[in-house]
Amino acid sequence: MADSDLPTRPKPEETPAAGAPAAPAEGDSKSASKNAAKKAAKEKAKAEKAAARAAQEKAQAAAQEANDTAKHLYGQLPETEDVNPTTRFSDFTEEEKEVTVVARVDNARVQSAKLAFLMLRQQGQKIQAVIAAAEPISRQMIKYTGGLNVNSIVQVTGLIKKPEIPISSATIQNLEIHIRKVYMISEAAQMLPMQVKDAERPPPVETTDDAPQVDSEGAPIVTLKTRLDNRVLDLQTETSQAITWISSGVAQLFSEYMIKSGSRWIFTPKLVGAATEGGSNVFEVKYFKRNGYLAQSPQLYKQMCIAGDMENVFEIAPVFRAGGQQHPPPLDRGENDFLAFAGLDFEKTFEHHYHEVLEFAEDLLVFILSQLKERYAAQIATIQKSYPKAGDFKLPKNGKALRLNYMDGVALLKEAGVDMSEQERFENDFTTAMEKQLGQIIRDKYDTDFYVLDKFPMAVRPFYTKADPKDARFSNSYDFFMRGEEIMSGAQRINNIEELEASMRSKGLDPTQEGFEDYLNAFRQGCPPHAGGGLGLNRIVMFFLGLPNVRLASLFPRDPQRLRP
Amino acid sequence: MADSDLPTRPKPEETPAAGAPAAPAEGDSKSASKNAAKKAAKEKAKAEKAAARAAQEKAQAAAQEANDTAKHLYGQLPETEDVNPTTRFSDFTEEEKEVTVVARVDNARVQSAKLAFLMLRQQGQKIQAVIAAAEPISRQMIKYTGGLNVNSIVQVTGLIKKPEIPISSATIQNLEIHIRKVYMISEAAQMLPMQVKDAERPPPVETTDDAPQVDSEGAPIVTLKTRLDNRVLDLQTETSQAITWISSGVAQLFSEYMIKSGSRWIFTPKLVGAATEGGSNVFEVKYFKRNGYLAQSPQLYKQMCIAGDMENVFEIAPVFRAGGQQHPPPLDRGENDFLAFAGLDFEKTFEHHYHEVLEFAEDLLVFILSQLKERYAAQIATIQKSYPKAGDFKLPKNGKALRLNYMDGVALLKEAGVDMSEQERFENDFTTAMEKQLGQIIRDKYDTDFYVLDKFPMAVRPFYTKADPKDARFSNSYDFFMRGEEIMSGAQRINNIEELEASMRSKGLDPTQEGFEDYLNAFRQGCPPHAGGGLGLNRIVMFFLGLPNVRLASLFPRDPQRLRP
Repeated sequence: MADSDLPTRPKPEETPAAGAPAAPAEGDSKSASKNAAKKAAKEKAKAEKAAARAAQEKAQAAAQEANDTAKHLYGQLPETEDVNPTTRFSDFTEEEKEVTVVARVDNARVQSAKLAFLMLRQQGQKIQAVIAAAEPISRQMIKYTGGLNVNSIVQVTGLIKKPEIPISSATIQNLEIHIRKVYMISEAAQMLPMQVKDAERPPPVETTDDAPQVDSEGAPIVTLKTRLDNRVLDLQTETSQAITWISSGVAQLFSEYMIKSGSRWIFTPKLVGAATEGGSNVFEVKYFKRNGYLAQSPQLYKQMCIAGDMENVFEIAPVFRAGGQQHPPPLDRGENDFLAFAGLDFEKTFEHHYHEVLEFAEDLLVFILSQLKERYAAQIATIQKSYPKAGDFKLPKNGKALRLNYMDGVALLKEAGVDMSEQERFENDFTTAMEKQLGQIIRDKYDTDFYVLDKFPMAVRPFYTKADPKDARFSNSYDFFMRGEEIMSGAQRINNIEELEASMRSKGLDPTQEGFEDYLNAFRQGCPPHAGGGLGLNRIVMFFLGLPNVRLASLFPRDPQRLRP
Repeated sequence: MADSDLPTRPKPEETPAAGAPAAPAEGDSKSASKNAAKKAAKEKAKAEKAAARAAQEKAQAAAQEANDTAKHLYGQLPETEDVNPTTRFSDFTEEEKEVTVVARVDNARVQSAKLAFLMLRQQGQKIQAVIAAAEPISRQMIKYTGGLNVNSIVQVTGLIKKPEIPISSATIQNLEIHIRKVYMISEAAQMLPMQVKDAERPPPVETTDDAPQVDSEGAPIVTLKTRLDNRVLDLQTETSQAITWISSGVAQLFSEYMIKSGSRWIFTPKLVGAATEGGSNVFEVKYFKRNGYLAQSPQLYKQMCIAGDMENVFEIAPVFRAGGQQHPPPLDRGENDFLAFAGLDFEKTFEHHYHEVLEFAEDLLVFILSQLKERYAAQIATIQKSYPKAGDFKLPKNGKALRLNYMDGVALLKEAGVDMSEQERFENDFTTAMEKQLGQIIRDKYDTDFYVLDKFPMAVRPFYTKADPKDARFSNSYDFFMRGEEIMSGAQRINNIEELEASMRSKGLDPTQEGFEDYLNAFRQGCPPHAGGGLGLNRIVMFFLGLPNVRLASLFPRDPQRLRP
């Protein structure tokens, strides 16, 4: 097909979008299985209808096939086609070059019997493809191409050209593909529960039953619930693609830093015999003929690795919390009912002072956050289109974390008119609202969104926390904050058995309780001084990008109402 | 203390070991909690006795303190001491240099009122330290040093010297420390359930009730059960230190290869709503007001990520199997009751043929195994002292994996006299014994311990496996083997919804069953062709090193009888 054969055509973004409308949000979880059955029946009916129609079309097509000059150029991929290497949109450079691509159909429409358009999508990147009647392209082939179901995966061969007018609805606006061949790789159903392009716009912050279903421009509004119910489609958006890269990056940068420091990667058990970290907060598991529990954190085990002379260890693994606030580490504060986390844990011996480990952890976070900015600039820019805060996370200019004491935080809040009573200071810790306010104060004063508070009151920390030897009201413990929200909790741990047992008793725990034996033996048998911390990967992603909900920073989030997909 | 002040002394390895004898193995798990209580009471009594004795000694010491010239040189670490940088044994170079080390007491003994010896240990490395009476060292200090509880952690300052005779019981034989100061960092209890040095010898392959408690040289034999019950002590052995490094290395090399290939690190849910991968094999969890299950593998979720356009993903996470053989991946074959695994999973789209992914996976394993040999040569040499096979793992000379078809394996076995019936071939797959024999045949014939079998019979693979389009009795699936034992299972997956539903039905599964909906929708909405696999980290470590039991390759193993430590 030669370029000059192309008739004049309207800009594609002016034409209404093809494909299915967004499905209404499903009912609440109580009726979820009923809905699921209904939905399945409905989809089955739809599928049957589509199949019948497809059969009909096939019959028509067969009748016309005899005089279809292009019949080998579209439809099912012929076996002989399987040797062409395919190209990614991002590798397009030369015009007039023939390329073969595998991509999603983001949109398809027939303009006339002689002209059709596709919007093709690869991981959120979009390019326009056009097909026009000219030897050997047939009218049947144009009809087939313009009638492709949205979200189908196709293999397209064509010539790269410069469009007459830049395609403003595409992400690659100055190139388009002039189709020579189009084959089906994986066909999507005709009706989809939501359109990927509708999910490109951020979800409404809150949704009520009488909330509008379309925005001011008439485009469907896709709620967070609909997105999460159809997470596979939601993951296909440019924004989700970028967020999942950031999430991958946090894990990668964490392991990179730890490995460089000589740390050993550990895998501690997730099934444990006793609920040693708070009973109300733990998941119970049937373990053969008895009960087991899901580990709420690797805390006791990473300390046992330290007692096992491993000196410097880290783990990347799920943590299981059945909701509610809980040290350590209170990953779920402010998101009490969110409970599927990826935990990043570390534990390390020190020589003289726990600040050796604290500095190690501070440098870890500065490394992760600054490298995210450097290595994932393109993804951050993409996310910023939907979530404007994504690009404005402030890091300390000198490359070292800002460290204040808890009491400095108390003083800063007091200056701002928030006065805590003695009891509040020493028994309650900051509320989430206070933490957020403190985050704003610190941003204004120190020009950073990441900072550390050291020396928390002993009363608000778990039993294994080392008290400050100079003032027993405080402890050698620290929290890390991003935009005024906690992302890590850590401390020096008690490594003396008598001190540990006394601390347990003072917190109302019984050292002879089942489940503590192996942990306590680790200290009876000698254990070096150590400190550590636990980070929440999802919260780091959320606060770094300024996302409105932590579920957007989780692949398949879980909460008391959600156990699917 | 000058070198010349040292009196002649016997070689330390000739003197009997100090410290506690190995504890007898505990009773079976049914009486475990009773035993635990007994043990706790016993330990408490011991601790009280020790405390009383310590008090007595303290009083004596106080009386003598007035004329103790060395009282500031030993005992509790003075606050003023906390600024000396400490050195690792491995950094010792110069003789006559003063060093400060933090180390375990592996052994301590008083030779005379004027002379005592310590064996010091750092992560399995041992060096001798000696203390002799000479200004300002006092008799009290010598008594204190020689009487240190085994396994205590001490800070020792002294001069590096060359011993008169190499210290054959130490790992650093040509240097020793002449003690000037010795301070307690963390004191171990007087009685330990086993001695770390006794655990340096490998455990007996099988243990019976009437098995001998000591070996032919009179040294205590420590069973696997005793080791695992006291895993923190067991981790301190040179062998365990090295094995945990190999385990860390496998995870590191896996992630390194995946990241280099542009793969995205994912975290899929471990709590799922339905037992979609085999009901008998799954752990049930109380999930608020309903039941949930622990994911047996990330299989369905990593495929959903592929449907979500993520193209190339990997996960490093625990997999939960309640025992029994189960695809995918049958990590637990041959170790049916072992069920705490670290799983290494990947899933990847391909362009034309699933062999693109198979080759990617083969190169992954060649990378991991060859890099283990290169980067962990020292650890492998250490492990070889206890497990002689650790150093002899054979890799293909040309750097590419050996790939045979399943039917080639059948033929090789037939040549060796093991003939499988048609039914055995197509419905049963190889038995573990046959796999091991095949491993030996392949080692003899091809000179490699790592190889791949492709094209397994469809009947023995899970429902989502793609049948071989050329012969439906077979499938586009593969297993990876090390020393004749399976370490990975993988396949091309069905990406067409009709084909997938038909495959489910042919395997007796109902596609409308709760829990499959989201998975199947992923294919209804279009999904690219893809393949992947799941590796068992612990099994890779076990077979690479030729360890006799997979529990030795797990930090804190779990099985139906073991939920602790």
